[in-house]
Amino acid sequence: MDVAQYMTQLGEQARAASRLMARADTDSKNKALLAMAEAIDARREALAEANRTDMENGRDKGLDDALLDRLELTPARIDGMIEGLRQVAALPDPIGAIRDMSYRPSGIQVGKMRVPLGVIGIIYESRPNVTCEAASLCLKSGNAAILRGGSEAIHSNQAIATCIAEGLKAAGLPHEAVQVVETTDREAVGRLITMPEYVDVIVPRGGKGLIERISNDARVPVIKHLDGICHVYIDAEADRTKALNIAINAKTHRYGTCNTMETLLVDAAVAGELLPELAEHYEQLGVELRGCERTLALLPRLNAATDADWDTEYLAPILSIRIVDGMDEAIAHINRHSSQHTDAIITENYTKARAFLREVDSSSVMVNASTRFADGFEYGLGAEIGISTDKIHARGPVGLEGLTSEKYIVLGDGQVRS
Amino acid sequence: MDVAQYMTQLGEQARAASRLMARADTDSKNKALLAMAEAIDARREALAEANRTDMENGRDKGLDDALLDRLELTPARIDGMIEGLRQVAALPDPIGAIRDMSYRPSGIQVGKMRVPLGVIGIIYESRPNVTCEAASLCLKSGNAAILRGGSEAIHSNQAIATCIAEGLKAAGLPHEAVQVVETTDREAVGRLITMPEYVDVIVPRGGKGLIERISNDARVPVIKHLDGICHVYIDAEADRTKALNIAINAKTHRYGTCNTMETLLVDAAVAGELLPELAEHYEQLGVELRGCERTLALLPRLNAATDADWDTEYLAPILSIRIVDGMDEAIAHINRHSSQHTDAIITENYTKARAFLREVDSSSVMVNASTRFADGFEYGLGAEIGISTDKIHARGPVGLEGLTSEKYIVLGDGQVRS
Repeated sequence: MDVAQYMTQLGEQARAASRLMARADTDSKNKALLAMAEAIDARREALAEANRTDMENGRDKGLDDALLDRLELTPARIDGMIEGLRQVAALPDPIGAIRDMSYRPSGIQVGKMRVPLGVIGIIYESRPNVTCEAASLCLKSGNAAILRGGSEAIHSNQAIATCIAEGLKAAGLPHEAVQVVETTDREAVGRLITMPEYVDVIVPRGGKGLIERISNDARVPVIKHLDGICHVYIDAEADRTKALNIAINAKTHRYGTCNTMETLLVDAAVAGELLPELAEHYEQLGVELRGCERTLALLPRLNAATDADWDTEYLAPILSIRIVDGMDEAIAHINRHSSQHTDAIITENYTKARAFLREVDSSSVMVNASTRFADGFEYGLGAEIGISTDKIHARGPVGLEGLTSEKYIVLGDGQVRS
Repeated sequence: MDVAQYMTQLGEQARAASRLMARADTDSKNKALLAMAEAIDARREALAEANRTDMENGRDKGLDDALLDRLELTPARIDGMIEGLRQVAALPDPIGAIRDMSYRPSGIQVGKMRVPLGVIGIIYESRPNVTCEAASLCLKSGNAAILRGGSEAIHSNQAIATCIAEGLKAAGLPHEAVQVVETTDREAVGRLITMPEYVDVIVPRGGKGLIERISNDARVPVIKHLDGICHVYIDAEADRTKALNIAINAKTHRYGTCNTMETLLVDAAVAGELLPELAEHYEQLGVELRGCERTLALLPRLNAATDADWDTEYLAPILSIRIVDGMDEAIAHINRHSSQHTDAIITENYTKARAFLREVDSSSVMVNASTRFADGFEYGLGAEIGISTDKIHARGPVGLEGLTSEKYIVLGDGQVRS
């Protein structure tokens, strides 16, 4: 069987399983999640063994330390998978929820019912714990999943797949509801993203290059996350302490995350008062600062920001700083340079807070809070499959609801159109 | 300026206008809609004149009667456009609505705000009244629109575009918020659907061939409507009168609409009692019936249905009929052959009604109502831009809400991540 045939088979099986999953009751889905957690707990040694094989192969292949770190299934990460499954089991079941039922003049009653999307294809890098996380979210939302992890994690992923299948079986659900692609052939990805007859949506998780390639080639809708070029704007009427705390936290809490601030905008009215102190803080923490001309006039020791800086996601201890004349200029900068991920204003002014919330076109818009809060757990989604920077279907952190859709339901007493 | 440059210019202008539209208040948008209605009323003669040119050119080109009928702007259709604009003005503004604000343990308050999608590209056939309808829905939902109608309607569309621009101007909104493509070059469509930097979503309206072509070539998300292969299932416990009325109405109220029934499924327990009477009704109305083997055993005079019939959208006075053993067989048939548009059960049984609603994976699922109700006006959306058979973003009739999305908003008092 070649790769194309193999993927078609996975697709057919997933489509058939998705119909059973759509009607699975909440109790069965939760049972499966808890049984998966038990299976993982019972097979810790087998998981560690499979992961050791992947780690050895990875070292032989010369993977760098960051990749090896993500590949490793430490006991703490196995605990994390188990805990994650239990948390998803505890989340409310979104499927079947009905809203807005109302009577129409014709006498029919119309409303919307939340339903699964069907089959979800997830493509991710060599982080085996994602296999478990993705499976749990797809399962709870009544979908079937086809998971394609990075080839370096193949043994770990297969070992996790065994636990997942066991959990599904224990709950009487079809084990094809979660299928982990068994081949490392790259053609498998090419097929997965071009089978609209079997796959309803693709969620790629990984670097920008991977996501752009998948978006360009996909014949199936893609829920994607591209850049995180996030801004904090310190308004003239900002509270000094809030401004300092948030500006420091948004940049330095973690450098490599998508919701980290990359550009700081400061109103000219308070730049002279705030920037020297902020710059000292940043420099103590080892952050390289790149300023606009006006910033350099204030702090000549900084590097100059180039045009490219305003459009760069550093994912590193680097920050570009620009002084602006008022909120409108800040919003114009944000709407031009932001990746529409997360942007925040620091202000005590009610009218400006309200306008900023309305006018900034990003998936998360904040007032007086650190951009680092843009995250499924912090938002109360329980877990997230990713953060969408798309405009249709789902924006921002995508939890269970993002893996569902709504259909119309109509209840009548024999009504006909006249 | 070549077509590619021209379309890029439209795209840039639309993107700029979309930012102003996103912050336009409800009053301005309604004023623009009412001013458009007045402009159309005041320019009836110019519209009729432009339409006469299109009609003459169409006749010279040998367009068939159905196409000429759709192309014609009768006084009644002009009245319809004016009335439609006023109705959209009267609809509630979806933009800025906030839901589910709640406090999180960190102290931040998180919720969702409804926002426009941005720039919407609409591609449609030679029906000039669609220009007005599409413009009004995009405008009210805070979007900018690029409209590309069929080339046969070019003079009518330009005349309507003048009225639209006048309305926007009267309300102080940018006239680039609604741009009607002025060239009939087909390359314009090719560019429109491959400019993700300027266009956020494409809504194609027209025949299946057009929609498939656009979906295949688009590099922008598409909200689309493909087939309408709709089913009515008459259950063993159906009320006889409701079953007869709905089965007749769903097929014969109008033959050419996407929500017309194409296949009737009847439980074997009641087929002998219902089908002979139903067949007589249909035959009197001139409907050709094509039956499965069991149907032919009951009514030997009918034509035999072939495998292809179960997957055909007739859009004509033809109906395929299949006898099934119970609801599960009916659901299996529907989930296999339905285009996931609209499917109905006729039953008095509570448990079966509930299961049918849950298990049938179509954009509208009905109990004891005619499939003909699947329509934005009947559902209370006020107007519709189309009916989506997609699974992500919007399913079923798409009104103002389908042209919007939701972003997260976060309100804090200086919170930082720890």
